[in-house]
Amino acid sequence: MKFGGTSMAGIERIRNVAGRVLREAEAGNEVLVVVSAMAGETDRLVQLCREASALHDSKEYDVVVASGEQVTAGLLAMTLQNMGATARSFMGWQLVRASGVHGNARVDAIEAATLDEALKSGAVAVIPGFQGVSDDGRLATLGRGGSDTSAVAIAAGVKADRCDIYTDVDGVYTTDPRIVPKARKLTEITFEEMLELAGVGAKVLQVRSVGLAMREKLPLRVLSAFEDLPGTDIVAELSGANMERNEIAGIAADRNEARVTLTGVPDQPGTVAAVISPIAEAGLQVDMIVHAATPDTGSSDLTFTVPRASLAQAMAVIEDRKDAIGYAKLLHDDAVAKVSIVGVGIRSNPALAAKMLETLAERKINLLAVTSSEIKVSALVAEADMELAVRVLHTAFGLDAA
Amino acid sequence: MKFGGTSMAGIERIRNVAGRVLREAEAGNEVLVVVSAMAGETDRLVQLCREASALHDSKEYDVVVASGEQVTAGLLAMTLQNMGATARSFMGWQLVRASGVHGNARVDAIEAATLDEALKSGAVAVIPGFQGVSDDGRLATLGRGGSDTSAVAIAAGVKADRCDIYTDVDGVYTTDPRIVPKARKLTEITFEEMLELAGVGAKVLQVRSVGLAMREKLPLRVLSAFEDLPGTDIVAELSGANMERNEIAGIAADRNEARVTLTGVPDQPGTVAAVISPIAEAGLQVDMIVHAATPDTGSSDLTFTVPRASLAQAMAVIEDRKDAIGYAKLLHDDAVAKVSIVGVGIRSNPALAAKMLETLAERKINLLAVTSSEIKVSALVAEADMELAVRVLHTAFGLDAA
Repeated sequence: MKFGGTSMAGIERIRNVAGRVLREAEAGNEVLVVVSAMAGETDRLVQLCREASALHDSKEYDVVVASGEQVTAGLLAMTLQNMGATARSFMGWQLVRASGVHGNARVDAIEAATLDEALKSGAVAVIPGFQGVSDDGRLATLGRGGSDTSAVAIAAGVKADRCDIYTDVDGVYTTDPRIVPKARKLTEITFEEMLELAGVGAKVLQVRSVGLAMREKLPLRVLSAFEDLPGTDIVAELSGANMERNEIAGIAADRNEARVTLTGVPDQPGTVAAVISPIAEAGLQVDMIVHAATPDTGSSDLTFTVPRASLAQAMAVIEDRKDAIGYAKLLHDDAVAKVSIVGVGIRSNPALAAKMLETLAERKINLLAVTSSEIKVSALVAEADMELAVRVLHTAFGLDAA
Repeated sequence: MKFGGTSMAGIERIRNVAGRVLREAEAGNEVLVVVSAMAGETDRLVQLCREASALHDSKEYDVVVASGEQVTAGLLAMTLQNMGATARSFMGWQLVRASGVHGNARVDAIEAATLDEALKSGAVAVIPGFQGVSDDGRLATLGRGGSDTSAVAIAAGVKADRCDIYTDVDGVYTTDPRIVPKARKLTEITFEEMLELAGVGAKVLQVRSVGLAMREKLPLRVLSAFEDLPGTDIVAELSGANMERNEIAGIAADRNEARVTLTGVPDQPGTVAAVISPIAEAGLQVDMIVHAATPDTGSSDLTFTVPRASLAQAMAVIEDRKDAIGYAKLLHDDAVAKVSIVGVGIRSNPALAAKMLETLAERKINLLAVTSSEIKVSALVAEADMELAVRVLHTAFGLDAA
């Protein structure tokens, strides 16, 4: 069981969490609990680090920010004891070996034997999320949102049957309910679909944790920390009971896009690489890439997208290489958004992509670029068209709640 | 160098601390720094524990409250780096082995080799006070004020030349300046004198830390974290330069006393033990004990003092044993206070005790009890007389500032 910061914010809420933990333990389950810091606490600690030193040593940053989860782990353990349970906390440095960059480390191994022993003795183990110990014996944190990853790694380490992520939303929805009030909570979704939905804007789970759960074949469940509602299971394959689920799991929308277009680039091998490589080398993320040659002219247009915050830097990189690339005009637009349909059904049914494009065309929504992968088709549209696009696709693919 | 909570309260003050540390390092010293949590932070964490569970597991309490010093250690290390120093933090669990009761553990050993290595590499080591790791690998704290003890233990562990305790007072005074505005800061004081002054009310240093420094023969220095003033050296023996210091180091005053008197107790062996033993067994501290037989009556009076908060409990213990002890009347008075002269000179000069008693008699201050040890003479007086007693003794022993 993993509880986020909102559910740990204050002793009253920690008591509520303890109640949920006890219910699982009393149902005969062996329970490990991974906790986040109280909501706002990590921000406060990060702010202290910034004030202390603008460019701070990430090892010292880790020492400071890891304290938030240590506090909630101790408090939850004593609250559980107070409610009659056998419980104890462990620290990240006692259990989780991590490596890589401090402040954004990755989990290498879990001391599963220590946890197995605690579980065998009938105790609930409470573990601070977001942290472990590095090879040189120092505290290491896993990057913001890393408590989800801690929970998945620890659950996989002890070969848990399931990892339940309790959060302030009650599951994964077919799309953002702020855009489509008729958005529906999904009973089940595959890891791949979840990764695509998370990657393009669904903020339910840290993407890394979903990738890790997929590799470890560890079923996840997302559910509300505050209400007793069924959540969403995230699984390797949809169960029989859900085979009748729509072929499309959901519609993702992402405003964090900016488009760059180079006109009149030479229509020859190596052009795309000459543009994209320096962007990637500058550490910028490139998302959609569309290169369409105009027949018989010997030149073509190249369009790609970057996160909005990276637009100015991307433009500068390209302008610096104007002669080497050889383009006519450099255009940009930061009022664009990406709308995607996501579903394992796309793999086997090309008609779904066609249906998407037709639906958008019917509503006269102009497509600035289209890309597709095995389980996702994305269209870049004017930002002003984004919400309409999401709504019409949500209806067209039969996702609206009754 | 050890810095208390007031000097670590906020980034501005941590920067001030870093400046002092740098100055010592730039003067060619190898420096270890032990830090307290930000002022108020430990209270906040203790309060969270109380809210979580009135009777909390001290191992979980340790997990929660140890976080405060972890934060300041990381922040000071990055502030030092930001100011150009080589610095790194260590955690208590990496360095300090502790045992005994969680929440009030004692230091067993220091990983001196780890610290020596850091010092040899030219780094300033920053260490959270108040904590270590127990035999079973769990966080253990040393009790409130334990950061002083951490500092002394770590300094002794690395065979430091000196341990400087930076605090919000600028040294040890001849008495409480709130009572005697002419109180003088001492240049030097012995460990024994400091223990007696601390034990009877001077709140400058944790008593345990002074005892430890005395055993380890580690010179201490108490000085202001905020002002550049000479502090007070706490040493095994007064140096030649201070041989002309007054024979009395200072006057201690303690209002936290209550007197219990049993009249008409049998004047026979075992009476005192019959009274005091059950008090001690109940976990109450007994301070002054005065047993004066009235010649030829076969009975006598017995007076002792306990901390005020323990008075009711002490009375109940005695009343329960009325028949076994066999006393006439049980009297008590909680409006009493203890005034003491403290100085290594008392050992060799009995005239000092006489001078104290004469001085008080001249001012018609009634003495309810008198006790003496090697370096201290204490008089129990009415609380209303306490301040006058301190002032006249301070003058009589030549302690008033010019």
